[in-house]
Amino acid sequence: MSSTISYIKENRSRYIEELNEYLRIPSVSAENEHKADMYRAAKFTVQKLKDAGMTTAKIFDTNGHPIVFAEIKVSASKPTILFYGHYDVQPAGDLKLWNTKPFEPTVIGDKLFARGATDDKGQLFVHIKSVEALMKTVGELPLNVKYLIEGEEEIGSENLDVFINKNKDLLKCDAVVISDTSLYAPGVPTLTYGLRGLCYMEIEVTGPNRDLHSGTYGGAVANPVNVLDDMISKLHDKKGKITIDNFYDDVIKLTKAERENFKKLKFSEKAYAKEIGVAELAGEEGYTTLERQWARPTLDCNGINGGYTGEGAKTIIPSKASAKISMRLVPNQDPKKIEKLFTKYIKQLAPKSVKVSVTSLHGGYPVVTPIDSKATLVASKAMEKAFKKKIVYMKEGGSIPVVATFAKELKAPTVLMGLGLDSENLHSPNEHFSLTHFMLGIESSVYFLEEFGK
Amino acid sequence: MSSTISYIKENRSRYIEELNEYLRIPSVSAENEHKADMYRAAKFTVQKLKDAGMTTAKIFDTNGHPIVFAEIKVSASKPTILFYGHYDVQPAGDLKLWNTKPFEPTVIGDKLFARGATDDKGQLFVHIKSVEALMKTVGELPLNVKYLIEGEEEIGSENLDVFINKNKDLLKCDAVVISDTSLYAPGVPTLTYGLRGLCYMEIEVTGPNRDLHSGTYGGAVANPVNVLDDMISKLHDKKGKITIDNFYDDVIKLTKAERENFKKLKFSEKAYAKEIGVAELAGEEGYTTLERQWARPTLDCNGINGGYTGEGAKTIIPSKASAKISMRLVPNQDPKKIEKLFTKYIKQLAPKSVKVSVTSLHGGYPVVTPIDSKATLVASKAMEKAFKKKIVYMKEGGSIPVVATFAKELKAPTVLMGLGLDSENLHSPNEHFSLTHFMLGIESSVYFLEEFGK
Repeated sequence: MSSTISYIKENRSRYIEELNEYLRIPSVSAENEHKADMYRAAKFTVQKLKDAGMTTAKIFDTNGHPIVFAEIKVSASKPTILFYGHYDVQPAGDLKLWNTKPFEPTVIGDKLFARGATDDKGQLFVHIKSVEALMKTVGELPLNVKYLIEGEEEIGSENLDVFINKNKDLLKCDAVVISDTSLYAPGVPTLTYGLRGLCYMEIEVTGPNRDLHSGTYGGAVANPVNVLDDMISKLHDKKGKITIDNFYDDVIKLTKAERENFKKLKFSEKAYAKEIGVAELAGEEGYTTLERQWARPTLDCNGINGGYTGEGAKTIIPSKASAKISMRLVPNQDPKKIEKLFTKYIKQLAPKSVKVSVTSLHGGYPVVTPIDSKATLVASKAMEKAFKKKIVYMKEGGSIPVVATFAKELKAPTVLMGLGLDSENLHSPNEHFSLTHFMLGIESSVYFLEEFGK
Repeated sequence: MSSTISYIKENRSRYIEELNEYLRIPSVSAENEHKADMYRAAKFTVQKLKDAGMTTAKIFDTNGHPIVFAEIKVSASKPTILFYGHYDVQPAGDLKLWNTKPFEPTVIGDKLFARGATDDKGQLFVHIKSVEALMKTVGELPLNVKYLIEGEEEIGSENLDVFINKNKDLLKCDAVVISDTSLYAPGVPTLTYGLRGLCYMEIEVTGPNRDLHSGTYGGAVANPVNVLDDMISKLHDKKGKITIDNFYDDVIKLTKAERENFKKLKFSEKAYAKEIGVAELAGEEGYTTLERQWARPTLDCNGINGGYTGEGAKTIIPSKASAKISMRLVPNQDPKKIEKLFTKYIKQLAPKSVKVSVTSLHGGYPVVTPIDSKATLVASKAMEKAFKKKIVYMKEGGSIPVVATFAKELKAPTVLMGLGLDSENLHSPNEHFSLTHFMLGIESSVYFLEEFGK
C-alpha cells in the first residue's frame, strides 16, 4: 500500500497536467454552442479510463449529451463499487469577473483555477487516478469497479435517469461513491449524509405586443416587469417563509437531536458573512444558518430579465419579462408536486392584464443517505487515514438528483465523499480546487478500495 | 402660395430619398459605439439646413453630442420662430423583432420604416423642407427662422440646457415650434398643450461578493434579485397608487372642465387594448385611461437584469441585480424633488443584508403650454388648412424636457405641432412614420410661416 501512496505522490504534476487538459474542454451542458465540446469531454473521459486500466470504457449516446460507462471486472465474488461523476460544467458567466480565463486552467499556490475544477472534473478525476495508481503498483484491484460519468448534471440529469432505469444490470453495485460535495472545512474529512432536492421553474410575463413608449402609455397598461416583480415579491412573507399554498405540507421537521448536532459544529455567522462579503445574513425566522441551508426548503430567483438593460436610459414599457426561480427541497418534498403548487400559485397571482406562462426546467428529489452502511463506515476510515483527522458528518444545501435515483433503481447506498469547499466558487467566477484536497482525495479513494475489497 | 404647395407635392420622392439618407445614420445617443455616427448626423443636418437656404448653419460642440444651430435673418422688425428637433434616436433594441433593418429605411405603402422615422428625424425634417420650399418658390421668408437641433433628447438633453442658458440672445424668438409628439388620430390635426415630466432612476442591489451556488447558500443569504423585486413591488399599492412618501404633494388635480373635455374625445378602451395586444388595460383606480396618461404621474420599470438569463437552468444566487425605473410627472411636480423622495424611500426599504445604490439618469419638468398664444392660434389654422379638418387639443403622456427650459430661459411659448402617431412604434421595433402626415406637415409648416410672418 505504501508503494501506491508513494506512486501517487510522485505523479502529482502529471495528474495536474492531465486534469488541466480535461478542464480546457469547455463542456458547458446548458449552452448549445458547446455540443461538440461535450462530446470531446466524453471521449477524453473514456481515454483516461482506458489509461487507468479499464477492461470496458465507452460512450452511450442519449437524447442529450453522452454518458460514459467503464468497468474492471475482477470477480463475481468480490463487491462492486460504482463511481459517479459528471464531466459537464456550469456556464462561465461574465468573463470580466474572472481573474484567469475559465477554460485556461491556472495554478496559483495550492489552488487550481478553472470552470469545472471542483465541480466536478477535479473531484471525479480523483477516482480515476486512484484506480490507475493501484493498477500500476499492485497490478490488480481488490474489488470490481464501475464508473458512470454523465454530461447533464448541471441541467437536470434527465437522460441519466432513463439510462439507469434501462441498465440496472450493467450498473449493479454494492455501493455508489460520489465526490461532488464539500468538506466541512479545509483539511477536515467529511461525509455528507443529506442533500436537498430541487424544483427549477421559469416564469414569462407578456404584456403589450411590443415595447411601448413609457411616456405615452405609462399608467394605462400593466408593465410586465412590475407585474413579475410583484409576483416574485409575493412568494415570501415577512418572516422569510414561502407563501405557496401547501408548500410545507411534506417537510420533515428538524429533530431535537439533529438541531443539537448542528449546533456542535463550529460555525461562525460573522466569518461566514465576511467571506461572502455581506453585512449580515438573512433567512427564514426561527432557524440557524446551518438549519436554513441543510434542513429547510428555500426559494431563490436565479435570474431575471426584461426591458432595456443597456447603458443609459430608454423609456419603454417592456413587452416581456422573465425570471428563473428555483426551490431547494427537503425530505419528503416531491419536486413534481412542488412544481404543480408553484404553477397554480403563480397563475392565481397573475392579473388579467398580462399573459403568464410557467415552465419547469428541472427537478430532483431530496435525499438522506444511511450513515451506518458498510460503505459509509469504510469511507469514513479511509478519509480519516488520508487526512489524519476525525471525520465530520454534515448535510448539504445543494442537490445531486441522481442519488435518489440510485437508491430507487439500484437499491444501493451512496457515499458522498466530497472533496471541494463551499468557498471554491463553484457556479461562480474564479472556480477553483485545492490541490491538497485533490491529492488527499486520491489517497482516500485508494484506502477505500483496499478496505471495501476485503 | 399655391406654387409653394405644388412644389412640395412635386418634390415628394426627393424629400423621402433625403430623409432616408438621414435615417441611415445610426445616431443612437445612448450607445458609445455610435459617437462618430452622432457627428455624421449633425453634419448631415447642417448640410440640409444650408441646402434649404440658411445664412448660418453650424455645429456647436458640447461635453456630449454636438448641437446644430442655423438661421435665416430677414428683418429685425419681423417675428422670429425657433424650430427645435433632435437628430438622435433610441437604440434599435432586439433586431429579431424588426421586420426590416432599423437603419435601412423601407417604404411599405404609406409607411416609412426606420429607427428615428417618426422620433424625430422625419418630424424635424418637415420644417427644413417647408423653409426650403418657400425659398425655392417665393425666394424669401416672411419672418426670421432659427433652428436648434440637438443630439441628446433621448438621454436627457443635459448639454442642451447649458447651451440654451449660455446662448439666450442667439436663440431669442417669439415662439418655439416642435414636431415631436403625436396626432390624436390619423388625419386629425392636433396640438398638444401639456406634457408630463420625467424622473429616470437606476437602482443597483449588491448582495454576496460573487454569484453563489443556490443549493449550498440558498436560504442563508439575501438574494439581490428577490430584494430588488420586493422593493419594486412596494412602489405601488393595491390601487395602483405610488407609495413613495410625499410623491403626490405637488400634483395639480384634474379640474372638472378638463375631465369633461377628455371625455368628449372619442376613446375606445377596447380598441386601444386590442391595438397593443392586451386583454385588459390597467392603472390607477379612479381615473380613465386618458386621465392616467395625460394628467396623472406614473411609475414604470423600464428594464431589469440580474443573475443568469441564458438558456436552461443555472443554480445561482446572483451577486447583483439592477433596474431602471422612470416616473412620469405632472404639473407641478419637480423632478429634482421626486429624485430625492424616490432615493430616500428606496434606501428605507433596503434591508441591511444587501447594499443598495440609487442613481439619477435624467429628469425633465412637466409643462402646460398656453393655448391662447398667437403661435398656437396660427398653428391651429395652418394645420386645419393642410389637413382639411378641425383641430383637436390634447395632452400627452411623454416628456420633452426642453419645453420647460424654453419657457424659463427664452420666455417663449412652445407650439407642439406633433405629426406622429402613438401607434408608430416609437421606442420599439418597427418604428415608422406616415408619409401622408409627413407631406401634410410640410404644408402645415409653410402655412404657419406665411401666417405668422404677417
